[in-house]
Amino acid sequence: MAQPIDFYFDFSSPYGYAASARIDAIAARHGRDVRWRPILLGAVFKLTGSQPLTGIPMKGDYSKRDFSRTARLMGLPFTLPPTFPFASVAQARAFYWIEAQDASKARMFARGVYHLAFGEGRDVAGPEDLARIAAPLGYAPADLAQGMGEPAVKERLKTEVDSAIARGVFGSPFIFVDDEPFWGSDRLDQVDRWLETGGW
Amino acid sequence: MAQPIDFYFDFSSPYGYAASARIDAIAARHGRDVRWRPILLGAVFKLTGSQPLTGIPMKGDYSKRDFSRTARLMGLPFTLPPTFPFASVAQARAFYWIEAQDASKARMFARGVYHLAFGEGRDVAGPEDLARIAAPLGYAPADLAQGMGEPAVKERLKTEVDSAIARGVFGSPFIFVDDEPFWGSDRLDQVDRWLETGGW
Repeated sequence: MAQPIDFYFDFSSPYGYAASARIDAIAARHGRDVRWRPILLGAVFKLTGSQPLTGIPMKGDYSKRDFSRTARLMGLPFTLPPTFPFASVAQARAFYWIEAQDASKARMFARGVYHLAFGEGRDVAGPEDLARIAAPLGYAPADLAQGMGEPAVKERLKTEVDSAIARGVFGSPFIFVDDEPFWGSDRLDQVDRWLETGGW
Repeated sequence: MAQPIDFYFDFSSPYGYAASARIDAIAARHGRDVRWRPILLGAVFKLTGSQPLTGIPMKGDYSKRDFSRTARLMGLPFTLPPTFPFASVAQARAFYWIEAQDASKARMFARGVYHLAFGEGRDVAGPEDLARIAAPLGYAPADLAQGMGEPAVKERLKTEVDSAIARGVFGSPFIFVDDEPFWGSDRLDQVDRWLETGGW
């Protein structure tokens, strides 16, 4: 099997949510796996001088409209959670703690976070929110809480963020097909085509 | 015939160039005309705190790659001109001066500017560049230069920029189908679909 696709995303990113619904199917169609890699855009934005879309004059209003229009076109439920943008470090740490044990469960956890946050429009930053998502996957709240606090898990997230930045990731979602970078859920058709043709 | 589509763009915008190659055909397929409206992103960026893509750390390198990748996928020639981003006020004034006399020639002029700038990668900000594009359309260099300097033409451009801002335009290309806004050449398929279905 060829090299997996790298799928970088921030849990607080509505376009990451949109991409998460299609990326696995696109990759599978071309015999590829996907490495899901939650990162923290806050760290990236410091380097680029950027900020969350919804806080930018004019662009903010458009973005909110485009989030839900994009989701609707994809047949995805969409509601912006009461707190937005929201802190995404806890979810990312939980992800990497789970991944160290079971990569497929980590992916299910990520889908759970995204569904709760943007499918149902609920807060997902609190320990009780994460516990609710992780419990059906077999992780007890106390274990999850302890795991998320482990230095190795914190370090893992930091390493992933640094590595993403080193590869040029400045937004979410950000996808690499081999070394070809694609930014945005609106590049998924291009990702599909690149996988099909090997470039153009 | 239904209301024309409004196509806002900056002459210095590679994605505006990309959109300019498809927008008329998309609109025509649905029995619509297109109002081409050059604007000045510089004025908009002051309001949003934004800046030209290529000057932004990380995003700049990606953008240059994406400009040409996008054009290649569309079958368009693409070369970034030596000066980029470039001043686009002269081209926009020339456009509105020509438009006041003949809208279809103004559109040909706009295509000429875009082709020279991004198809051939040449500078298009100087009077001699504009004269070279306008001459085949029947406008003598001296008339063009004088027309561009008319207070009414300057005022027309200012009015278009103000009106664009009032409608929420913050980037290029920016397209309105009736009152539905679409930002970016990567939204052209959505524009096509919106025209087909009246929304989703």
